Amino acid sequence: MKKVFVNELEKHLGKEVVMSGFVDTVRDKKWVMFVVLRDSTGKVQLTLEKSEEKNAEMIELFQKVTKDSVVEVNGTVSKNEAVKLGGIEIIPEEVKVLSQAEELPYDYNNLDGVNIDTRLDYRFLDIRNERNMLIRQIESCMTEGMRDYLYKNNFCEIHSPKLIAAASESGSEVFEVKYFERSAYLAQSPQFYKQMVLASGLDKVFEVGPVFRAEKSNTYRHATEYTSFDLEFAYVDSVEDVMNVEEDLLIAGLTKVKEKYGETIKEIFGKEVIVPSKPFPRMDLNDVYQELNKRYGYKIPEEDVGDMNNETESLISKYAMEEYGHEFIFITGFSSKKRAFYHMRDENGIPNGYDLIWRGTEITTGAQREHRYEILKAQAKEKGLGKDVDFYLDFFKYGCPPHGGFAIGVDRLTMLLLGLPSLKETMLLFRGPNRIEP
Amino acid sequence: MKKVFVNELEKHLGKEVVMSGFVDTVRDKKWVMFVVLRDSTGKVQLTLEKSEEKNAEMIELFQKVTKDSVVEVNGTVSKNEAVKLGGIEIIPEEVKVLSQAEELPYDYNNLDGVNIDTRLDYRFLDIRNERNMLIRQIESCMTEGMRDYLYKNNFCEIHSPKLIAAASESGSEVFEVKYFERSAYLAQSPQFYKQMVLASGLDKVFEVGPVFRAEKSNTYRHATEYTSFDLEFAYVDSVEDVMNVEEDLLIAGLTKVKEKYGETIKEIFGKEVIVPSKPFPRMDLNDVYQELNKRYGYKIPEEDVGDMNNETESLISKYAMEEYGHEFIFITGFSSKKRAFYHMRDENGIPNGYDLIWRGTEITTGAQREHRYEILKAQAKEKGLGKDVDFYLDFFKYGCPPHGGFAIGVDRLTMLLLGLPSLKETMLLFRGPNRIEP
Repeated sequence: MKKVFVNELEKHLGKEVVMSGFVDTVRDKKWVMFVVLRDSTGKVQLTLEKSEEKNAEMIELFQKVTKDSVVEVNGTVSKNEAVKLGGIEIIPEEVKVLSQAEELPYDYNNLDGVNIDTRLDYRFLDIRNERNMLIRQIESCMTEGMRDYLYKNNFCEIHSPKLIAAASESGSEVFEVKYFERSAYLAQSPQFYKQMVLASGLDKVFEVGPVFRAEKSNTYRHATEYTSFDLEFAYVDSVEDVMNVEEDLLIAGLTKVKEKYGETIKEIFGKEVIVPSKPFPRMDLNDVYQELNKRYGYKIPEEDVGDMNNETESLISKYAMEEYGHEFIFITGFSSKKRAFYHMRDENGIPNGYDLIWRGTEITTGAQREHRYEILKAQAKEKGLGKDVDFYLDFFKYGCPPHGGFAIGVDRLTMLLLGLPSLKETMLLFRGPNRIEP
Repeated sequence: MKKVFVNELEKHLGKEVVMSGFVDTVRDKKWVMFVVLRDSTGKVQLTLEKSEEKNAEMIELFQKVTKDSVVEVNGTVSKNEAVKLGGIEIIPEEVKVLSQAEELPYDYNNLDGVNIDTRLDYRFLDIRNERNMLIRQIESCMTEGMRDYLYKNNFCEIHSPKLIAAASESGSEVFEVKYFERSAYLAQSPQFYKQMVLASGLDKVFEVGPVFRAEKSNTYRHATEYTSFDLEFAYVDSVEDVMNVEEDLLIAGLTKVKEKYGETIKEIFGKEVIVPSKPFPRMDLNDVYQELNKRYGYKIPEEDVGDMNNETESLISKYAMEEYGHEFIFITGFSSKKRAFYHMRDENGIPNGYDLIWRGTEITTGAQREHRYEILKAQAKEKGLGKDVDFYLDFFKYGCPPHGGFAIGVDRLTMLLLGLPSLKETMLLFRGPNRIEP
């Protein structure tokens, strides 16, 4: 590959390079033409003096070329302090059009009056917006940081099947698949399989992959398919071990993002990347209710008792910031009625689980899991789960270490990190009840 | 977490630790009892002298405990050269059963006469076999090495949707999903979306995720769902750039595996991990046919002309080893009739694509892609693809850099690396026409 990327040009000062990229802007002045090319690492100016005869053909080409066409330029990299783009310009010798663009249907850099559905229909243009491209790069950086932490701590990456035989776990909200002569379903989470692998003796596992929810929710934070960062590990002494690992994992991810994109995020998204201190504040749900009532006059509605709702999440986050100066807060003490059957429960029947709230929104449900076959079976029965979960219960019959884990929605994490208004803007390609295109 | 892992015990010599694990074996001798515990990092011996009164209760517990129950032991780590397992033993002070195992349905360490379907039904036991657990760990290590290489080279990780609107790409062999009031389909590959993101200006992307194939094949190397390691990048000058990146990627993965598991793989799987030298041999398909005919008297059947079949792959691999001492060989020059419409073609209509063969089996189809809208549209039409691919063709209307990429089946790679007989043994949980359980 001959192409030199914009962020490498400095190393090639005074040399001839091949610089390909999208035609960003053409400014055709009386004596000179300035063309800006861009790739994913930045922008660079081409300078064409009109007095130079050898430039005539290239100038003609650039007068005709449409915005966002892709061209290949041979030219010399020069220092020029007057150039805003990094004090560098390229003096081109030869230009070739690699791909001619049709006229753009809208200006992806000026989204005033462009509704989100149009943007999603033209997602391949939408991402050309610098901000939207950064979302992708920052999300990748965040998951890289989190993965690095897990590899360093001997977690094994798994890939569990998404095609499953039974509409298990919750018994509803699963997509049905025509699977040859029978039906299959799309996994709502890798939960059962993460636990299966722990029962098989691998002590620490994680998976980053798609999960599917057949929910007709049209909210800023729900999608029918999204990427889940899931992990599970054995030999926990209590749910505290699970929370500790989640703290370290998020710190690893945010540290990486802050190093690489902290300044950019401040500038482009107006958000400070804060690497949180340990431990994150922890609070029991009953204390949450009391504190929110006392401090903000908020009373939890009857139907939400034993759980959080959006307003509770938002207020407790506010409280955590006011009281502890902390963006994160763990909430424990949920009702077993509001939590999955596989959460281990304490002697009072309270799940050994938690929600983690960040910037007003729940990003995780985590728990120590019930690993004892008989108790787990009873808890499944209590939730009305029938033989669909028998295959799962079997995992615990032949010895299983105590364990726990959690899942983080990668897209939701990115949304909160950058202060984006919804998952539609955040996900590479949003999927909702009314959208499975492009 | 109090537990110390087996591979960390050496650091705790002379100290009291908590060592939890599966009960692997109990040897109840006249004067002493030896109990071996195991976790994913190894095995350790507990030694209980019968003459010591304080051991009586623990000895009674271990006499009753079933194989593979999980126990937690408090004890002191001691050096004892006579102990085969690392010259270390634990002298226990206290033992607690964390999970009592039922009698195992079969001995997962002795698979003589156990058929593969029984093993898959009990996959959570099957992975307790040291060899099978290693498969998981080695696969994770291989993908880690490959990912590291991509991160270092500024590839951005994406997560493309698996729920898609049209049965696109090949028009057949896709699973249909009931999606609220309409139908959706499961993506056969992230191909279209990888390219969409490149058209949007991100230069280098990759994805590791599930792909779905509604094929009724029952072969050792096919599955209806598997993990694909996909990548795509812009500004390639030719398909050679794509092959070069694949060489580097595989070298990175294999180097990591060799460092960490090379000796183990030799010992347990009887396979040498060979980090290949660059460049891998490259050969045109017509030369393949000629050479195989000349050397092995093999003639390609009429229906396979323009492509490879299993026998060709196997023989050309043999040839590469004999002629170049190389385990890998790139084959180019396939017929456009046998390749996807989005492969760029040369002036003779031959796709600028390749297959990569390793140890007798194809592991990759890669190519430079056609990025010019009009040509791409014509090639789609020629293959009889209708409006299902219009959304994809649109990606190329507004400027798109030249690009290329490839995909590697992670499980197939692991199968060949370790010399396993089929994907059923290799995948965490195999999915085929007759199996979507557990």
